Amino acid sequence: MAKSFTTREENYAQWYNDIVKKADLAENSAVRGCMVIKPYGYAIWEKMQSVLDKMFKDTGHVNAYFPLFIPKSFFSKEASHVKGFAKECAVITHYRLKNNPDGDGIIVDPDAKLEEELIVRPTSETIIWDTYKNWIQSYRDLPVLCNQWANVVRWEMRTRLFLRTAEFLWQEGHTAHATREEAIEETRKMLHVYADFAENFMGIPVIKGYKSPNERFAGAEDTYCIEALMQDGKALQAGTSHFLGQNFAKAFDVKFLNKENQLEYVWATSWGVSTRLIGALIMTHSDDNGLVLPPKLAPLQVVIIPIYKTEEQLQAISAVVEPLISQLKAKNITVKYDDDDSKRSGWKFNEYEMKGVPVRIAIGPRDLEQNRVEVARRDTLEKVSMSMEGLPENIQALLDEIQQNIYQKALKFREENTRKADTWEEFVSILDNHPGFVLAHWDGTAETEELIKEKTKATIRAIPFDAPKEEGKCILTGKPSHQRVLFARAY
Amino acid sequence: MAKSFTTREENYAQWYNDIVKKADLAENSAVRGCMVIKPYGYAIWEKMQSVLDKMFKDTGHVNAYFPLFIPKSFFSKEASHVKGFAKECAVITHYRLKNNPDGDGIIVDPDAKLEEELIVRPTSETIIWDTYKNWIQSYRDLPVLCNQWANVVRWEMRTRLFLRTAEFLWQEGHTAHATREEAIEETRKMLHVYADFAENFMGIPVIKGYKSPNERFAGAEDTYCIEALMQDGKALQAGTSHFLGQNFAKAFDVKFLNKENQLEYVWATSWGVSTRLIGALIMTHSDDNGLVLPPKLAPLQVVIIPIYKTEEQLQAISAVVEPLISQLKAKNITVKYDDDDSKRSGWKFNEYEMKGVPVRIAIGPRDLEQNRVEVARRDTLEKVSMSMEGLPENIQALLDEIQQNIYQKALKFREENTRKADTWEEFVSILDNHPGFVLAHWDGTAETEELIKEKTKATIRAIPFDAPKEEGKCILTGKPSHQRVLFARAY
Repeated sequence: MAKSFTTREENYAQWYNDIVKKADLAENSAVRGCMVIKPYGYAIWEKMQSVLDKMFKDTGHVNAYFPLFIPKSFFSKEASHVKGFAKECAVITHYRLKNNPDGDGIIVDPDAKLEEELIVRPTSETIIWDTYKNWIQSYRDLPVLCNQWANVVRWEMRTRLFLRTAEFLWQEGHTAHATREEAIEETRKMLHVYADFAENFMGIPVIKGYKSPNERFAGAEDTYCIEALMQDGKALQAGTSHFLGQNFAKAFDVKFLNKENQLEYVWATSWGVSTRLIGALIMTHSDDNGLVLPPKLAPLQVVIIPIYKTEEQLQAISAVVEPLISQLKAKNITVKYDDDDSKRSGWKFNEYEMKGVPVRIAIGPRDLEQNRVEVARRDTLEKVSMSMEGLPENIQALLDEIQQNIYQKALKFREENTRKADTWEEFVSILDNHPGFVLAHWDGTAETEELIKEKTKATIRAIPFDAPKEEGKCILTGKPSHQRVLFARAY
Repeated sequence: MAKSFTTREENYAQWYNDIVKKADLAENSAVRGCMVIKPYGYAIWEKMQSVLDKMFKDTGHVNAYFPLFIPKSFFSKEASHVKGFAKECAVITHYRLKNNPDGDGIIVDPDAKLEEELIVRPTSETIIWDTYKNWIQSYRDLPVLCNQWANVVRWEMRTRLFLRTAEFLWQEGHTAHATREEAIEETRKMLHVYADFAENFMGIPVIKGYKSPNERFAGAEDTYCIEALMQDGKALQAGTSHFLGQNFAKAFDVKFLNKENQLEYVWATSWGVSTRLIGALIMTHSDDNGLVLPPKLAPLQVVIIPIYKTEEQLQAISAVVEPLISQLKAKNITVKYDDDDSKRSGWKFNEYEMKGVPVRIAIGPRDLEQNRVEVARRDTLEKVSMSMEGLPENIQALLDEIQQNIYQKALKFREENTRKADTWEEFVSILDNHPGFVLAHWDGTAETEELIKEKTKATIRAIPFDAPKEEGKCILTGKPSHQRVLFARAY
């Protein structure tokens, strides 16, 4: 059947945009760089939120809410933090509009100028550590384990729906600890939570590792990350967890009395994932027929479509479908019976395929006679006939299988597209001819990393946690190196 | 026992602030008018969100997300809307900071001035109707039933935690319909959802009614509201639902082809409740011992406290508590066993009383012997001894009873503090001596309402839906009136 949208082969970027649009996930708004997340896209985000929120609570965290605005002076307090965020932030300077005395419309009231400008939070370390100062006096007040679900704004110049937008939704965890070790342990724990979520819910295999100093969060001593590989061979940072040392405690003077009755600065972490994950989800699994969703995050897991000509046939089908729906719901499967008379079944097939509904059940009069249904799975596009007998159990098993299969498929893709390069020529050739992850030696300096980026647009995505010790020479400078790091061009 | 905080009698406003602070609900932030919602306060908001979200979905609504920022020009498009919001909005004029070339710190980069200023949304009608323009072409695209959970900003000059803050959290429903009747029906339906939530979950009796033109939402043809009465006799608007007519459709040129193939403007509603509800919750039920929470919205419903001297006693108690916890959890009751050794039980009693935990179970060695426990209910502060036999069922029944009781208590208070006034003297005397709701005749004009407000600070809270027809004379002007309206001083 002719598809009305671009294939990955033709134009990967356009394919992505087409899916976002045609699966009704999001659109650009009238405000530069800000997106509208449409109901279907938002439903995916709600699913993600609900899984992550439970994971955070199961690991002892609580939710709270901190102000949207940050006084300008707060930014100056942590030097590298302001350097990282000052160039791309929305600044509030006034608090009132008024009628234009010289004509039509409304203008900013010059008399309503703020004494100190406010920044719309690009991230909340500063306002939160200013708050923690009042919460933490003694070791008994520690740890503080807060998470916040919020919107943040970074004035990006080039934006793409979900992947890079001026405003985005995210969660940001901010924790305070009595010791360096405990904070590092927390940083690591939350990265593992993210990896667990990415692999077991999103079906996206990820590499866990350290960021190089160049790619670290502004204000962090260490940044851990999970990195995923998209179908075009570009990497996508899917989540980060930062060990902030005592940087923010020092900037905001947050000290506590330890068990030895000595004043000490508090140790910090922060960690976050955002609506960017929806971009990763789309680009990892989808195909030229549209969106493919992991069953665990699909707003709708099963759609049932009646195939009929007469009202009598429809009634006979509906009579069978009704108990089936109850049985599926009893298994916590989200199901919809689409008996909308105004749409052809072919149109429906396309629509649910485009929207990535994992399982489609079609029932026609002949199926009824045989006490069977036609079951189509979205991931492989295969169709099989299944007996009504034991169908709910079989559908549940199929959903599990799809969840597994798309992960395995993505894992296989990543393995096939992770290569080792030992020379500069190899490195460049791989990047140009076989885009993907490249494991290569690097001399460990920021200058070399910068130079490699300038020459190839590839960056160090991660220094993998599990990278084996291996002696080698930096692909650019030939200087000695003790392990390979993971390079790629990235989103 | 001596309480370390203000009683209602002494100073109602201070009592409120003390509860917010001592029950760990929220605090002021470094940003003028913006609050920090602390974990315990936020947990109440999460409970509210989860109940309301289900109610919205059960009535056919879906969630979506629209931009935080609104172009200034959008405001000018609906005349009364801009009039209502222009005087109190945060205005973004720049998108970059830079190092101060003349000294220390960072300054707003004058080269990064926006061509058109952006307003931080005080409400989202304008940006949403600009979006709906692209979503709606035909009657087949209607209705659109979207809700958004979001933060909004109104630059209030005098702020109070939860009740009136510059930034607050809320939900805003925005729906689009093919006919006036359907939109009015939706406006009404959502007001009933709010009333249901207020009465059956928050335990707050509310009056449903119309707002007078003076109190209408800026841009609405009609505003329906639910009004509650606080313990100090002041009213609090707990939720509003607006029939917007075709105002925003006309402002943003949103037309649809109706079934007769004619172009017509779309009909609109919007409706919202906010974190202000937490203020209402506090002020309706709490007492001089602290917060009182309705069991259905309490983050923690039952706390179990062991009373012991020896480690052996604690072990014996814990052995009994463990299965009890499982049984309570199986009934979906949220329970915590506080065996923290570093706090005295008296301290714990006070703490959970302050935090409004509906039921406290205490178990000591003597209770163990008798196979009984001491159960204290937060609403009446009564303590009774209960057998371990059938305890989970009895606790569940007690939670239901508390939920009912605090509603009945609030209802009785409102009934006792709702009076009729037939003359101006009566009216003023009631307001000054028996603060509460006053049912009085009004001549129906905005001028009279304004004058009454100037003289007494009382406003028309609602024209009750169920107000009986009754001929009378306006308390101020003596002009004829056909029904009483509800006056009060208000938050």
